[in-house]
Amino acid sequence: HVHEWVDESVDARDDWARRRRKDIPNDKRLFVLACMDERIPVEEVLGLELGDAHVFRNAGGKVTDDVVRSAALTLQFFDTEEIIVVNHTDCGMMSAADEDVVGGLEATVGGEMDDVDLDPALPDLNIGDASIAEWVRMTDDIDEACTAQVAYLADHPLIPDDVTVTGYVYEVESGHLRRPGERIGEEISERV
Amino acid sequence: HVHEWVDESVDARDDWARRRRKDIPNDKRLFVLACMDERIPVEEVLGLELGDAHVFRNAGGKVTDDVVRSAALTLQFFDTEEIIVVNHTDCGMMSAADEDVVGGLEATVGGEMDDVDLDPALPDLNIGDASIAEWVRMTDDIDEACTAQVAYLADHPLIPDDVTVTGYVYEVESGHLRRPGERIGEEISERV
Amino acid sequence: HVHEWVDESVDARDDWARRRRKDIPNDKRLFVLACMDERIPVEEVLGLELGDAHVFRNAGGKVTDDVVRSAALTLQFFDTEEIIVVNHTDCGMMSAADEDVVGGLEATVGGEMDDVDLDPALPDLNIGDASIAEWVRMTDDIDEACTAQVAYLADHPLIPDDVTVTGYVYEVESGHLRRPGERIGEEISERV
Amino acid sequence: HVHEWVDESVDARDDWARRRRKDIPNDKRLFVLACMDERIPVEEVLGLELGDAHVFRNAGGKVTDDVVRSAALTLQFFDTEEIIVVNHTDCGMMSAADEDVVGGLEATVGGEMDDVDLDPALPDLNIGDASIAEWVRMTDDIDEACTAQVAYLADHPLIPDDVTVTGYVYEVESGHLRRPGERIGEEISERV
Amino acid sequence: HVHEWVDESVDARDDWARRRRKDIPNDKRLFVLACMDERIPVEEVLGLELGDAHVFRNAGGKVTDDVVRSAALTLQFFDTEEIIVVNHTDCGMMSAADEDVVGGLEATVGGEMDDVDLDPALPDLNIGDASIAEWVRMTDDIDEACTAQVAYLADHPLIPDDVTVTGYVYEVESGHLRRPGERIGEEISERV
Amino acid sequence: HVHEWVDESVDARDDWARRRRKDIPNDKRLFVLACMDERIPVEEVLGLELGDAHVFRNAGGKVTDDVVRSAALTLQFFDTEEIIVVNHTDCGMMSAADEDVVGGLEATVGGEMDDVDLDPALPDLNIGDASIAEWVRMTDDIDEACTAQVAYLADHPLIPDDVTVTGYVYEVESGHLRRPGERIGEEISERV
Amino acid sequence: HVHEWVDESVDARDDWARRRRKDIPNDKRLFVLACMDERIPVEEVLGLELGDAHVFRNAGGKVTDDVVRSAALTLQFFDTEEIIVVNHTDCGMMSAADEDVVGGLEATVGGEMDDVDLDPALPDLNIGDASIAEWVRMTDDIDEACTAQVAYLADHPLIPDDVTVTGYVYEVESGHLRRPGERIGEEISERV
Amino acid sequence: HVHEWVDESVDARDDWARRRRKDIPNDKRLFVLACMDERIPVEEVLGLELGDAHVFRNAGGKVTDDVVRSAALTLQFFDTEEIIVVNHTDCGMMSAADEDVVGGLEATVGGEMDDVDLDPALPDLNIGDASIAEWVRMTDDIDEACTAQVAYLADHPLIPDDVTVTGYVYEVESGHLRRPGERIGEEISERV
Repeated sequence: HVHEWVDESVDARDDWARRRRKDIPNDKRLFVLACMDERIPVEEVLGLELGDAHVFRNAGGKVTDDVVRSAALTLQFFDTEEIIVVNHTDCGMMSAADEDVVGGLEATVGGEMDDVDLDPALPDLNIGDASIAEWVRMTDDIDEACTAQVAYLADHPLIPDDVTVTGYVYEVESGHLRRPGERIGEEISERV
Repeated sequence: HVHEWVDESVDARDDWARRRRKDIPNDKRLFVLACMDERIPVEEVLGLELGDAHVFRNAGGKVTDDVVRSAALTLQFFDTEEIIVVNHTDCGMMSAADEDVVGGLEATVGGEMDDVDLDPALPDLNIGDASIAEWVRMTDDIDEACTAQVAYLADHPLIPDDVTVTGYVYEVESGHLRRPGERIGEEISERV
Repeated sequence: HVHEWVDESVDARDDWARRRRKDIPNDKRLFVLACMDERIPVEEVLGLELGDAHVFRNAGGKVTDDVVRSAALTLQFFDTEEIIVVNHTDCGMMSAADEDVVGGLEATVGGEMDDVDLDPALPDLNIGDASIAEWVRMTDDIDEACTAQVAYLADHPLIPDDVTVTGYVYEVESGHLRRPGERIGEEISERV
Repeated sequence: HVHEWVDESVDARDDWARRRRKDIPNDKRLFVLACMDERIPVEEVLGLELGDAHVFRNAGGKVTDDVVRSAALTLQFFDTEEIIVVNHTDCGMMSAADEDVVGGLEATVGGEMDDVDLDPALPDLNIGDASIAEWVRMTDDIDEACTAQVAYLADHPLIPDDVTVTGYVYEVESGHLRRPGERIGEEISERV
Repeated sequence: HVHEWVDESVDARDDWARRRRKDIPNDKRLFVLACMDERIPVEEVLGLELGDAHVFRNAGGKVTDDVVRSAALTLQFFDTEEIIVVNHTDCGMMSAADEDVVGGLEATVGGEMDDVDLDPALPDLNIGDASIAEWVRMTDDIDEACTAQVAYLADHPLIPDDVTVTGYVYEVESGHLRRPGERIGEEISERV
Repeated sequence: HVHEWVDESVDARDDWARRRRKDIPNDKRLFVLACMDERIPVEEVLGLELGDAHVFRNAGGKVTDDVVRSAALTLQFFDTEEIIVVNHTDCGMMSAADEDVVGGLEATVGGEMDDVDLDPALPDLNIGDASIAEWVRMTDDIDEACTAQVAYLADHPLIPDDVTVTGYVYEVESGHLRRPGERIGEEISERV
Repeated sequence: HVHEWVDESVDARDDWARRRRKDIPNDKRLFVLACMDERIPVEEVLGLELGDAHVFRNAGGKVTDDVVRSAALTLQFFDTEEIIVVNHTDCGMMSAADEDVVGGLEATVGGEMDDVDLDPALPDLNIGDASIAEWVRMTDDIDEACTAQVAYLADHPLIPDDVTVTGYVYEVESGHLRRPGERIGEEISERV
Repeated sequence: HVHEWVDESVDARDDWARRRRKDIPNDKRLFVLACMDERIPVEEVLGLELGDAHVFRNAGGKVTDDVVRSAALTLQFFDTEEIIVVNHTDCGMMSAADEDVVGGLEATVGGEMDDVDLDPALPDLNIGDASIAEWVRMTDDIDEACTAQVAYLADHPLIPDDVTVTGYVYEVESGHLRRPGERIGEEISERV
């Protein structure tokens, strides 16, 4: 009967729209940390379709307390089993000097950054004795930075040991991912 | 001459690949804050192509210090002029009770959350007297939550006054955006 | 030989064009009752191709004597075995007050509705002591209305007991069918 | 700003989903009466898209009190200005003898049709002294029948005089519409 | 090796281009006689691709000495085993009166047709005591004409007995083939 | 109104299906004489769509009395103004010796060709003192043959002087047309 | 895990980009010698995709010391096992007289060709007692030339005996390859 | 008339197939020197269609006497006005040591290279006192090599001064061209 086919499609939609309430995980059980840069086709280079993964994106693709919070929630409540980190070349977060960045922020607020709520929804949040430059997280070398983010996540107590953590650098100049430190373009222009 | 066409394409690639070093903004001068849920086609519902916007995504699409940091950097250094917030129905971040979430996290770490570095890259970061439940940011009502995130951003000192901030709720059950509080499905099943 | 292939296509066309004279049923042995609203892609949401089903559509998708007549004919003479009812949200037939509708009709005829042939091809047809408002069939709640239409058909003596009758509400706001009373959008905007 | 484009698409969806509540007519201001036969691609032959017209379909594409009710509602409340009738060749409603049809219905109910509610939702509805065969509406000649349906509608007091009423016969053997009485195939097989 | 694939394609082209010299038959071993009317998609309605059949087309799709010559050659030398005749409705060859046609031809030549070489390449060809009207071959009834052409071919001494001969009438009003005499449109507009 | 668009499409179909009765010419006012060989995409190489031209095809694309008859009818009654002849290389009609062809035909009829009706529908048709080989029309040189067919038509009294007659040879080895005598492949394999 | 799929694509790219350093041969182990003429779709007629073959192209598709050098390198170091030569009709290198070509070159350099470095990167290269016309390599007959190039390669000491060498002539007039000497167009325009 | 369109297509084919004999240049008046590597989509990266350019390809994309010969012919006789050189990263011609290459060649011939005809069609050709390694043309740095090839061509007496010569390096790791020395990937992985 036709209504059986219709019932299946009604049920499939219900599973999609109430996925979180029904404790259905994402399709690949995957959490991605990537930079928010506008040039990174995260889903395409990881082969992901709508529904496949929780994709966290921030400035630099760096591990922050927000990353820890978000990863912990999906790992804890939605059966996520894998983490992939995607950093990239020509990252805006690496091309400026620390003092220029901090100076720019202070110019905007018209005063010291000490007087600003870093998190307006949680004013108690603060960085103690750390500097604003540390909080902003400039980058010296993108391959080293990628390796470091993987280590931060792999070693964190809220990330269970059996979660796989892998990191890649996306090359905006080639449109391809590389493993940290494996820059092909570096060596193939000259004789062995 | 053919080389003129080739030179143009070589230059266009250079502008793309060194966009950040050359202080070129994203194509729409737009920063998006959205939930990392796997069912939200953020680019599609906002009409965005690769290159158009910086898209920040975290658990719940909530304003955190990481959002403030990321938005401040793109507003300050890359001529971004507009912010759009995208929350959504059936958000995993709203369906659990606070005590269940905190209990789950503590089970994972095998102890108190007080002893855990919330940010492994910035161990000084802490939430003072605030509770872990506040840091996790459960949600009671998604429309109210969306309105609140817009307010947090619009009022923050690191967001200049001339930046436009707009919020929408993405309905996973319909595949459409609504403005907060404008739920069509609520009223059209019954007689006026 | 090629003429064998041609003969098959000639015969197939004959079966299509003289289907009713040859007592060939529709391809799914299905009768559909749906609202005539311009926004309902009836064939698409039921997965139907040309040739699959007899689709009855009227104002509101309500059971009338015309529905009974049409269903009885296809069930009796063309081996139809299944009935599906499709109502929908934002139905024009439910948003007006009874007195406004009746008043409007009387304004058009410039007099009492009592003096009007309800069926010009069958002037004897009349509604006895029933009111014009009952004949017009306004709706209070679309989910209840859908359940009621299913019951009218399932219980009617001209519908054999082994005919399956199923009802759905099409949501114009989501483009999906739901079973009566199973409105997803109703609950997923708030915390459990 | 991007949100302006988004706002337009949010508004367009609102207009679509609340079209009836907002008194927005269908896109062509058209009411169609067609047979429910599974072989009639009504939308295709009339050049209609989703949203264009209210399409009423019943057994035979005959004018009934349900047609009058449905047409009156769209004409009265939704600015509909045109009616098109689509009948077709090989109509199931014309190939049987009256007594066979009535006999079949009585066999189903196991008794006289007089004891059956013709409309279970409106039990007061009755056909007075008319016969069941008249209610079932068999057809002798499809071109004459089409002309008759146009006349029933054009002359009815609930159809204002400035409404255009046009009728066509859809040929299932050719896949084309003809005007009533203009059968091309009838004459072009022989010498003038 | 790649040259093996290339050699195959070189050989396939040789077989195509020298097909007649190599005594290769057409792909379906089929000879078609059809009218030259511009509205007949002969290949499409017979399901033929380039290479499949010898298609003879003349005014009316009538058997002439040219048809006999052409059919005999393909049957005799190229293994053709089947003949299909395609006539059609609204044939220009049937709509005129004999005297009008002959009169028109005589007006063109400015004299008697007797003085005209019917075949300029074979001036000895003549029609003896037959009339020009017979030579022009007007048609009274297309279904009878089709049946007659099939008989002319099936009975001719140059057509071996084991050759299949089949005839169809293409309806320009429906875009379909029918067998001679099986006009669907003739009967399905009225009650049985 | 929608019915205006429908009326236009009904009228367009009437013009198509009754084109001959309404004295409507083919779309290009063109008559084509081509060989019936299965490898000649006549419509494609002449840029023709369905409806554009009357296409006569016989064995060899040779002028016969049937060609004269067919051309005269379309020129006289349907406003045709142009004739194109298409012959082709590797024509089956040229590769055999005359005596082999005649011998083969006589073997089929089991006797003399003199006793055979060349045209079964017009038994009076005969070739006088001409030979069967002349009637069969073998070819020595395809370019010369094409030029000859053009001359036969251009000079015939039934073809008015203002009709344009052009001839081409289709090369099955290249898939292109050439003018008679302009064989490119003949000269470009060697040094000037 | 998703990272396994990503790792595979990262490795595949590495194999592609460092193919030569990793001693990976081309995909078909094929070396092609073809003319540089702009009308020769070398890859298409040989059925080659990007990655399949080393394609050497020069004026005339003639064997030179550069061809020997290039073929020797791919045969020696990259496991190439097959050679295909593609010459073509209407080759610019064959249509001029020797003296015209040499005269033209001398006009350009404004003096004797003896004083010109034939290879600016290797000034010691010279042609001894050979003439400039021999070095320029005009062609008398393209089929003979193709056969000769195959022989030069098959017999050369730097080409191992187990390497397959095949030659074809590409016909610009037909868009097809032929084997040397097998010109179809030469014979199929006339009677056998 | 239709034959005018046909004549144009016949003439266009003649111009294509006899382009060299008619002194018609290539469409872009361009000569390209590129490496024969199987991974270089020369036409695609230069935006070329069939018919646009003479594309010379050899091992390494290096200037040889064959390049000089081929370029001189197209510049002298076919109005070519521009030269583009395309070298590439990971070139097989650069990754080996000179002695390994020479040793490999000698192993193939089973003796000294001095006894081998470098050009079997022109045995007088020799490299004087230059070494085989110089003739083989290994590469140390691809960007420098590209610049050198441009200089060799720009400065050669057979290349007129008004010919534009431009060089690019194709990156097999990115699928893009760069100008020599402008390697984007070199610098964008680290902080300024």
